[in-house]
Amino acid sequence: MRVVRSEAREKAMAAKAASRELRRASTQAKNDALLAIADALGRSARALMEANALDLEAGRAAGLEHSLLARLELTPETLAAMADGVRGVAALPDPVGESFDARTLPNGLRVERRRAPLGVIGAIFEARPEVPTDIASLCVKSGNAVVLRGGKEAVNTNRALGRLMQETLADTSLPPGAVQMIETTDRSAVNELVKLDEYIDLLIPRGGAGLVRFVAAEASMPAITGGVGVCHAYADASALPHMAGEVVFNAKTQAPAKCNALDTLLVHAAAAPAVLGAVAERLLPAGVELRCDQRALALLGPSGGEQVKAASGEDFGMEFLDLVLAVRVVDSLDEALEHVARYGSGHSEAILTEDYGAAMRFVDEVDAAVVLVNASTRFNDGGQLGLGAEAAISTNKLHARGPMGLRELTSYKWVALGSGQVRA
Amino acid sequence: MRVVRSEAREKAMAAKAASRELRRASTQAKNDALLAIADALGRSARALMEANALDLEAGRAAGLEHSLLARLELTPETLAAMADGVRGVAALPDPVGESFDARTLPNGLRVERRRAPLGVIGAIFEARPEVPTDIASLCVKSGNAVVLRGGKEAVNTNRALGRLMQETLADTSLPPGAVQMIETTDRSAVNELVKLDEYIDLLIPRGGAGLVRFVAAEASMPAITGGVGVCHAYADASALPHMAGEVVFNAKTQAPAKCNALDTLLVHAAAAPAVLGAVAERLLPAGVELRCDQRALALLGPSGGEQVKAASGEDFGMEFLDLVLAVRVVDSLDEALEHVARYGSGHSEAILTEDYGAAMRFVDEVDAAVVLVNASTRFNDGGQLGLGAEAAISTNKLHARGPMGLRELTSYKWVALGSGQVRA
Repeated sequence: MRVVRSEAREKAMAAKAASRELRRASTQAKNDALLAIADALGRSARALMEANALDLEAGRAAGLEHSLLARLELTPETLAAMADGVRGVAALPDPVGESFDARTLPNGLRVERRRAPLGVIGAIFEARPEVPTDIASLCVKSGNAVVLRGGKEAVNTNRALGRLMQETLADTSLPPGAVQMIETTDRSAVNELVKLDEYIDLLIPRGGAGLVRFVAAEASMPAITGGVGVCHAYADASALPHMAGEVVFNAKTQAPAKCNALDTLLVHAAAAPAVLGAVAERLLPAGVELRCDQRALALLGPSGGEQVKAASGEDFGMEFLDLVLAVRVVDSLDEALEHVARYGSGHSEAILTEDYGAAMRFVDEVDAAVVLVNASTRFNDGGQLGLGAEAAISTNKLHARGPMGLRELTSYKWVALGSGQVRA
Repeated sequence: MRVVRSEAREKAMAAKAASRELRRASTQAKNDALLAIADALGRSARALMEANALDLEAGRAAGLEHSLLARLELTPETLAAMADGVRGVAALPDPVGESFDARTLPNGLRVERRRAPLGVIGAIFEARPEVPTDIASLCVKSGNAVVLRGGKEAVNTNRALGRLMQETLADTSLPPGAVQMIETTDRSAVNELVKLDEYIDLLIPRGGAGLVRFVAAEASMPAITGGVGVCHAYADASALPHMAGEVVFNAKTQAPAKCNALDTLLVHAAAAPAVLGAVAERLLPAGVELRCDQRALALLGPSGGEQVKAASGEDFGMEFLDLVLAVRVVDSLDEALEHVARYGSGHSEAILTEDYGAAMRFVDEVDAAVVLVNASTRFNDGGQLGLGAEAAISTNKLHARGPMGLRELTSYKWVALGSGQVRA
């Protein structure tokens, strides 16, 4: 009797089988395979763009928004950046086998913790074409097999990328099953994937708040919660107005749709006139809407024009992902800390201050993945923080916090080398 | 209007409030508080033993097994060991504030990861009286508040211990709310506790497989899966029979009810006559029952007496927690690795070998928390591996693997100290 299995289960099983071989692949073999994938992306540019054209056509026919179509498009530049990204991962140090806490116990037993792959990583993502190769290269380099599932808008592109990666791996010494792409657009595949804890060790949702909530609620395996950043900057009484203007401008406008973009500005009353003036001077010409509490409104409203509005209660604690900033005046560092504890999502929180004690208190007391002094929240990023690349940004407290690079995609095992030691 | 909250919610909220203060407590303040608790245990010995006597009396009346009553009993020796355990935790280095991966980026931003408490830890445990002070001391030292919930058999003992810890903390500079003991024996409190992810950051079940499964299935916050160890030792073709006998004897008999006790012995056919002979010589006089596959039975059966039996299929993959060992003869290292991958629970796995290549393959390919060469599985223990103490043994791959000491009860945050840096 032949068992009929769903595509999701079939591919998760194949990934699990491949992961046992991949776990012991050498760094050289993994790098060679990644460089082969990067080369194949260049060689197959035409075929990939043809597949992508089908998605763009279907997207236009379905009336997708222009911004979504733009993100979906695979240009020669995107392709070159994807190949560079894969080569960049090949160039990063291999975390697998790294030893730490090594010591020899009094009884002569040599113990250490040794970094080891997690096994199989599942990734659910939306429509960006660069995500499959980004995540697959990080997984392969860290010795993990990966099961990818992309948004239906990119089905043709993803299928072509999945096949390209598998076919390329088949010509290397790595198991081709190490990269699996679920091709069906049937939603039930996602519902099934999140329950396959028998095969998948970690699930990474790369998408909006809805996807992250779904995975957090439904996944039976550990999952990275992240992607939702309600980020604050607090300009303390001693903040330098010019610096505040520049940092807030960068944090809000450099990439407003990213999770590390600024959402709320808190300003100490003593600094509010000067700081809000400097901030408004930078943000208003950039088209940012300021949603102000009463005290901020009193300072900004008269000269601000229609971009300055009264905040509603919901504006605090909102992730805008757009050129909107909530603004509130507070009377003390404590009030700011209280606000951040209440409304923050544990993502990226900044203080602007020249006061050493205030900086130290903010760093110690704010419970977030990244806490910054006099710097933009946009630095919560694997590339910026020196990890080379990232598979996700975690707001979990367990395992990994902030950007998840290669090391954060591994576990460790204890290794104990003895000569007959027994416990007394 | 007064809101009526359950005890579990009330105490989880109080722990959360205390955790914000505890997070920034100094090492000195935490150590002073732990030493005060250790002293209080000594001073209150009589009251604690009176409370314990009520539990013992109720246990006897309810017809509890002798072994359970023995574990439940608080003797002067247990109490002294508890106080020593708390003092031992005070003497361990404080993980909070430890900085790692510190570097200055090219733009001058100083970044580092800084170890920080998780927040609130929930612990559900069974009847041993030493567990509340063990876990509470590890939590407090690592800057975490803790909500404890013990087995109903120890309700009077646990209540007395919980109050003693809170009252002692009230005389220190730490928030007394840092240690919470749920006193009701109502089962619904556990059902509620595992859903309080709003307040509890990590749940640690300390008990049998039933409790661990319940927590894994029901908890809405991250939980440590562990405690269930199906542990193997594989005696390779080159294993020294005498060493194999000693290591297997220790792994099986030194503490058979612990999760790191040996469950299955695999023996290479070439070494089977000598190794099984040496093992039987040590284990049979100790009263161990050997459940053998056919080939092992052929070797051991004739002279083994009634302690040597044929294994049923279920004996492989079974955690015995008793003086029983499953035994199987295999033809190769690959067959042994296959068996361990199939039946192991990722806890503690050992190889006995004089063959360097076999040792390296076993270490690299076995996916478990602790992998040992020529040493007893009993070394999977926080004290033994140099962590000082442990709150649990994890078979999770995420966050912490193996013994969870102080560091494993923490998270980290990224700290970035700048002077106005913005992202280009």
